[in-house]
Amino acid sequence: MIESVVFNKEKGRLELLDQTRLPVETCIVNCQTEHDTAMAIVGMQVRGAPAIGVAAAYGIVLGLNNPQNHEKIFASAFESICDLLAATRPTAVNLFWAIARIKEAVACAGSSDFASAAAVALHKADEIRAEDIEMCRTIGRYGASLLKDGDTWLTHCNAGALATAGYGTALGVFRAAQEQGKKFKVFVDETRPLLQGSRLTAWELMQEKIDATLICDNMAGSLIRDDRVQGIVVGADRITAHGFVANKIGTYPLAVLAKYNGVPFYVAAPDSTFDMSIKYGDEIKIEERDQDEVRYIGGQQIAPKDIPVYNPAFDVTPPELITAIITNKGIIRPIYRDTIPEFIKPDQCREAK
Amino acid sequence: MIESVVFNKEKGRLELLDQTRLPVETCIVNCQTEHDTAMAIVGMQVRGAPAIGVAAAYGIVLGLNNPQNHEKIFASAFESICDLLAATRPTAVNLFWAIARIKEAVACAGSSDFASAAAVALHKADEIRAEDIEMCRTIGRYGASLLKDGDTWLTHCNAGALATAGYGTALGVFRAAQEQGKKFKVFVDETRPLLQGSRLTAWELMQEKIDATLICDNMAGSLIRDDRVQGIVVGADRITAHGFVANKIGTYPLAVLAKYNGVPFYVAAPDSTFDMSIKYGDEIKIEERDQDEVRYIGGQQIAPKDIPVYNPAFDVTPPELITAIITNKGIIRPIYRDTIPEFIKPDQCREAK
Repeated sequence: MIESVVFNKEKGRLELLDQTRLPVETCIVNCQTEHDTAMAIVGMQVRGAPAIGVAAAYGIVLGLNNPQNHEKIFASAFESICDLLAATRPTAVNLFWAIARIKEAVACAGSSDFASAAAVALHKADEIRAEDIEMCRTIGRYGASLLKDGDTWLTHCNAGALATAGYGTALGVFRAAQEQGKKFKVFVDETRPLLQGSRLTAWELMQEKIDATLICDNMAGSLIRDDRVQGIVVGADRITAHGFVANKIGTYPLAVLAKYNGVPFYVAAPDSTFDMSIKYGDEIKIEERDQDEVRYIGGQQIAPKDIPVYNPAFDVTPPELITAIITNKGIIRPIYRDTIPEFIKPDQCREAK
Repeated sequence: MIESVVFNKEKGRLELLDQTRLPVETCIVNCQTEHDTAMAIVGMQVRGAPAIGVAAAYGIVLGLNNPQNHEKIFASAFESICDLLAATRPTAVNLFWAIARIKEAVACAGSSDFASAAAVALHKADEIRAEDIEMCRTIGRYGASLLKDGDTWLTHCNAGALATAGYGTALGVFRAAQEQGKKFKVFVDETRPLLQGSRLTAWELMQEKIDATLICDNMAGSLIRDDRVQGIVVGADRITAHGFVANKIGTYPLAVLAKYNGVPFYVAAPDSTFDMSIKYGDEIKIEERDQDEVRYIGGQQIAPKDIPVYNPAFDVTPPELITAIITNKGIIRPIYRDTIPEFIKPDQCREAK
């Protein structure tokens, strides 16, 4: 099993699979302190909201074990450690949520010294990690029930073990199907501009010995038309109460192609991805990223230096194009404003905590 | 005006805009002999079927002017020159067609010495080039009638001056609209894997001072959904008698997205692109190209070395997704088996000659 975030208790360090070096090199980043952990999050050596949350939780443990902090007053040192890690990625919901859970556990335990707080924090960090993996396994089992022996499915971006504490959401469906002994193939969209499909998903599926074939994003259409794809599964960054799904740019075109050709289109995501406070897709602000992500690949210029670029990170897929949403609470189908609340209770949303 | 293929009569050489160096550098390849010309075609310094045909025609002129050949018997030397150029790109229809026209002109003129044959060949090569530009201008004028002031259109790959003797087919529509004083914007698909959109079309439109914005192929969907595109125009590699269009991979998904969102989808191509000998899309063999085109960009590895890749060069768009085909004979609309023969006569097809 691929483990992107591992706390090595013997050596007292956090070991991260360096996602900036994949697939060319498989390297482990060893974080000895909270500062090392913060740098790894900022530098995107660990990425994916759930994986970042787990890494930050262990980063707090490292901070509490760091002898340099022991010369300071416990309460203010603990606060500084948490603030340092919270400042790494401003928009990752799981990051703040994981830090808040550690803080709450330390407060509940009444810890007021570094050693006892570190023990409580480590226990809670392990729990967050285990919960995330278990949630992915549940999603995987539900999703695998939709994949038939002999199928070929397609996925986009990386909703895999590398983005979570392990196992993955969309890729969890493939892991579970393989564990059930099903035979199937997967087409992987390379996912421009940052190539999470070719760099991460292709690597991850090869590690699991899942039969994977890489394509450019614009090749999915003719595969679907030629009846060479029996299902599509993607992850989600945010899902509204009425079932609009924000996910990596390129998701919406796949959903339209699937609808036009009668192929089922699935979204795999935990209940924490639902934002029940908003209803429609246009309430989701789409982040526009650096234009040079499109003009350059790995420092190499592939377009005129001064050509204007439009580079949205996400698109929104409306519910009428989604066959089902595979969650840890069950398979939501069909996607209507009435069906989602049957599975997703507002107080179960991570945002509500 | 961008001129990809120019015969410099004063200096007796063929000047090609080096398309392998764009957009990073704007270089001219000077061909002094038929061998230089053949190497430039093989090395894809000149690309696009019409541009290759014109380059080969001038390559014959250079061969007939080459003093080294004057020591040989005229007829066999002429045949060798033509064979050399015909062997450069095995599937480019315009290449064989251009060479055949030069041969026919030399035979008709009864030329039996190098000097007179060179004069006849040069005249015919100029004619082929002028015809190609005029054909593109006609397509451009027809297409521009469909583009409204204030529109934003989208294009894929490079069906421009760089692919033809000048002016282009799909990009000819934009040139003509600009000449008519219309104000409009263009989104350019980067066109993975070989990036003809970001490398060539983006550069070409900037040269013409047309307002162009570059996107990744998978970003077109959300632009279309958000009502930010009023028309799509692409070129074609081959069109069947019933209106199935083979074009650069990624064309079919655009056509589906356009249909789903009620945006007109146009194909711009000369009558010579129609192959009236076939009816349906599945009669067109789709070339699969080198897997490393997807695994590497400019020598840089972007995927696991050993991940299997599916890399089709073209896809097929069925007639029901095409609003109109813009040809030099007029605008064909709607696209049915009955409408195409009204515009395209079998004996006008280049293939039939």
